[in-house]
Amino acid sequence: MTDLTPSFDEKSPLYQQLYRHIVSLIRAGELREGEKLPSKRALAAHLGLSLTTVERAYGLLLSEGYVESRPRSGCRVCADVRAPGETPPAPPLPRREDEPRLNDCFSTSAVDTSLFPYATWARLSKEAVYQNPELLQRGEAQGDLPLRRALGDFLRQYRGVRCAPEQIVVGAGLEALMWVLLQLLPDGVFALEDPGYAALRRLLDNLGRPYVPIGLDGRGMDAAALGASSANVAYVTPSHQFPLGVTMPVGRRGELLRWAYERPGRWLIEDDYDAEFRYGSRPIPAMQGLDGGEKVIYLGTFSRTLAPAIRVAYLILPPELLESYRARSGHAACTVSRFEQEALARFLASGAYSRHLRREGLLYRRRRDALVSLLEGRGEIAGADAGLHLLFTVPGRDEGKMVRRAAEEGYRVRGLGEYAIAAPTPPGALVLGFAGLSQEEAPAAVGALLRAVT
Amino acid sequence: MTDLTPSFDEKSPLYQQLYRHIVSLIRAGELREGEKLPSKRALAAHLGLSLTTVERAYGLLLSEGYVESRPRSGCRVCADVRAPGETPPAPPLPRREDEPRLNDCFSTSAVDTSLFPYATWARLSKEAVYQNPELLQRGEAQGDLPLRRALGDFLRQYRGVRCAPEQIVVGAGLEALMWVLLQLLPDGVFALEDPGYAALRRLLDNLGRPYVPIGLDGRGMDAAALGASSANVAYVTPSHQFPLGVTMPVGRRGELLRWAYERPGRWLIEDDYDAEFRYGSRPIPAMQGLDGGEKVIYLGTFSRTLAPAIRVAYLILPPELLESYRARSGHAACTVSRFEQEALARFLASGAYSRHLRREGLLYRRRRDALVSLLEGRGEIAGADAGLHLLFTVPGRDEGKMVRRAAEEGYRVRGLGEYAIAAPTPPGALVLGFAGLSQEEAPAAVGALLRAVT
Repeated sequence: MTDLTPSFDEKSPLYQQLYRHIVSLIRAGELREGEKLPSKRALAAHLGLSLTTVERAYGLLLSEGYVESRPRSGCRVCADVRAPGETPPAPPLPRREDEPRLNDCFSTSAVDTSLFPYATWARLSKEAVYQNPELLQRGEAQGDLPLRRALGDFLRQYRGVRCAPEQIVVGAGLEALMWVLLQLLPDGVFALEDPGYAALRRLLDNLGRPYVPIGLDGRGMDAAALGASSANVAYVTPSHQFPLGVTMPVGRRGELLRWAYERPGRWLIEDDYDAEFRYGSRPIPAMQGLDGGEKVIYLGTFSRTLAPAIRVAYLILPPELLESYRARSGHAACTVSRFEQEALARFLASGAYSRHLRREGLLYRRRRDALVSLLEGRGEIAGADAGLHLLFTVPGRDEGKMVRRAAEEGYRVRGLGEYAIAAPTPPGALVLGFAGLSQEEAPAAVGALLRAVT
Repeated sequence: MTDLTPSFDEKSPLYQQLYRHIVSLIRAGELREGEKLPSKRALAAHLGLSLTTVERAYGLLLSEGYVESRPRSGCRVCADVRAPGETPPAPPLPRREDEPRLNDCFSTSAVDTSLFPYATWARLSKEAVYQNPELLQRGEAQGDLPLRRALGDFLRQYRGVRCAPEQIVVGAGLEALMWVLLQLLPDGVFALEDPGYAALRRLLDNLGRPYVPIGLDGRGMDAAALGASSANVAYVTPSHQFPLGVTMPVGRRGELLRWAYERPGRWLIEDDYDAEFRYGSRPIPAMQGLDGGEKVIYLGTFSRTLAPAIRVAYLILPPELLESYRARSGHAACTVSRFEQEALARFLASGAYSRHLRREGLLYRRRRDALVSLLEGRGEIAGADAGLHLLFTVPGRDEGKMVRRAAEEGYRVRGLGEYAIAAPTPPGALVLGFAGLSQEEAPAAVGALLRAVT
């Protein structure tokens, strides 16, 4: 423990204690040269001291040269007040290691935000602040009703999802909703797609909770392996498996649903993370709708379609889980700002979101087409019918070597093995996102990539 | 499983399948009377079908009378299309039970938002959207640096907290940060104040994690009982214990810190949830600053000072925990919208937040004074020197009866026993918040309260 701390004991006058406290902060380098002190009045009000006490403490600091005062600009810390030989300030904390600055245009989580509806969003945000004083108070744990209504209408029309607003829970990103699920399913043994999306696995690892990796075939999660496992909650991405890009056919969906119905306490989590984007293939509505929503917990997010910075995701709970959800999480506060909920509700209900999706779909289709045509003939392309990434395989190549050589060319690419838990992945496969690959950049970026992999 | 689902099989023409799907939604009552269908063009683009396919499906719906079309306003579902004898729509889901509508002006979580800086906040929000296209992309897991810098400066000056921006983690409310802590301290056995704040306990209950309730004396958590327990993480509210209102004196803080230093792997969580408001008593800086931040995890929130709807809280991690935090949560996305982070950073750095706190402090002081003067002589008042609630005890009275009689008078009040885990609480004690008790309302509300308790 350090002794450079304010003590506010009973023995010495308060102004002296305040003075010593500030001196100690300056000496420790915690108040930096040129930094402005709060006004006397503000500090007095905040600390519950009289103005006189603060004035005397500031007076001492001034007279001893720790701070200087200029008319109308308050007190600032002087230069070079640390005496030689005094304890130096604490060494800088370890910083996040800077990764080499590689071009990450193939990122699978990139979003092109050039289409972001700035004007509309700014207007809706401002209206939300001004027009709804009651929005400042705490809202419903599962999110405000106008947003849940608009979302339910949207999902029913566009994804074939079947739900009432009471089943929807809004949260600040998929991970925040996974916390809700982990509380709701305390005895869940999770089946994870292998290879698959790592967020849920990391959470389970961090909490020391059990999970079972289940391999995939060309139709998605292996239903036989799932049935033979100890898992009771299967997490799947049927509309566009991450990272393989497989769209799960209706037959496999039926097999998984049958697994869920076989025993009580079994659930499917359908993460529909990038279902908004399909390129010419026939649509397969959400598994949640196939099932009528009895056994499927549905997850979706606006981070891919609006902007990663906007933290709004949602889950749809089967009616059977609602009561337990309310008992366990009904007291919690919703993790999304109510202003943002209101802005998004209006954005959805006005039809602006559908228009935005349409524009985005056209842009991403062009990017996909450009990437596919540049890659064609140089390897195998899979999973390009939907979503924002595809799988590119150059048979026989070593994945690690491809990633390293791409880095030497200045590009960050991800090998399929990065997403594997236990299952071996075919060699020579790269997971390439195209949402962040502009048409101008594509030829050079793909050129470098192809030099690296061939 | 229901059969009212779209099948999109290979056997019948797509337009017929689409038509049947929409019919089934209308029959099930999921598409309601008067509801507008998406435009043909929008639906075609979204489903990846040709415009002709959708036009034929809509044509069938029109000709069979399921929908009607008006120029320039699209297709709407007609009235009364469900044939008698068909399956009725699913029964309404269980709704949250409506509590009797009691006046909740004594709520301990109320915030008076009449002082909310609408104009400033709306301007800052709008600027954040317009001026920072890069804010749309994913930010740092622990929150953006400008906010963490401004927050560190503020906490250092106002709370004596010592930290570098690298130690700060921003999240969407205290509960979101508790999730971070639960992942960071997977072997934590938590010591909880008894009586105390229930959020952490609920989370631990939901996850089946162990905790130990520790009783309080007039100086806060009982350090001897803590030392004798199996706990290694103690959660305390030293600046204004919830719900007793005790401010922990420096001596007890020292005892708790000594406990933490006795063995590696012991931590204190200091929840400084309403430290911003003190009324005339001497300030005691945060325990985090006393310790130099080595053993104390500091938690704070803007929900009490700005508005409950604004979900921004923060924690300060000891340097020793930083590396582990980055390994466990460095990949997660921050749960707070970057627009709101940027707006708040500007609000703090400009000094507007300090001014806002000052105005709020004056308002809440007046409300506290009004409540105290109305209660004086009718019972014992404790914990009124700080924060936004006080403890009012009418010795010898039955708590449950007081709460019931207040409800009969139309007011919701909370007995101290509501916050107890295992320790017996003194009878006849009510926890009264005053932040939501306007001066106009106070005489009538307190009058009713006093009728109920005497």
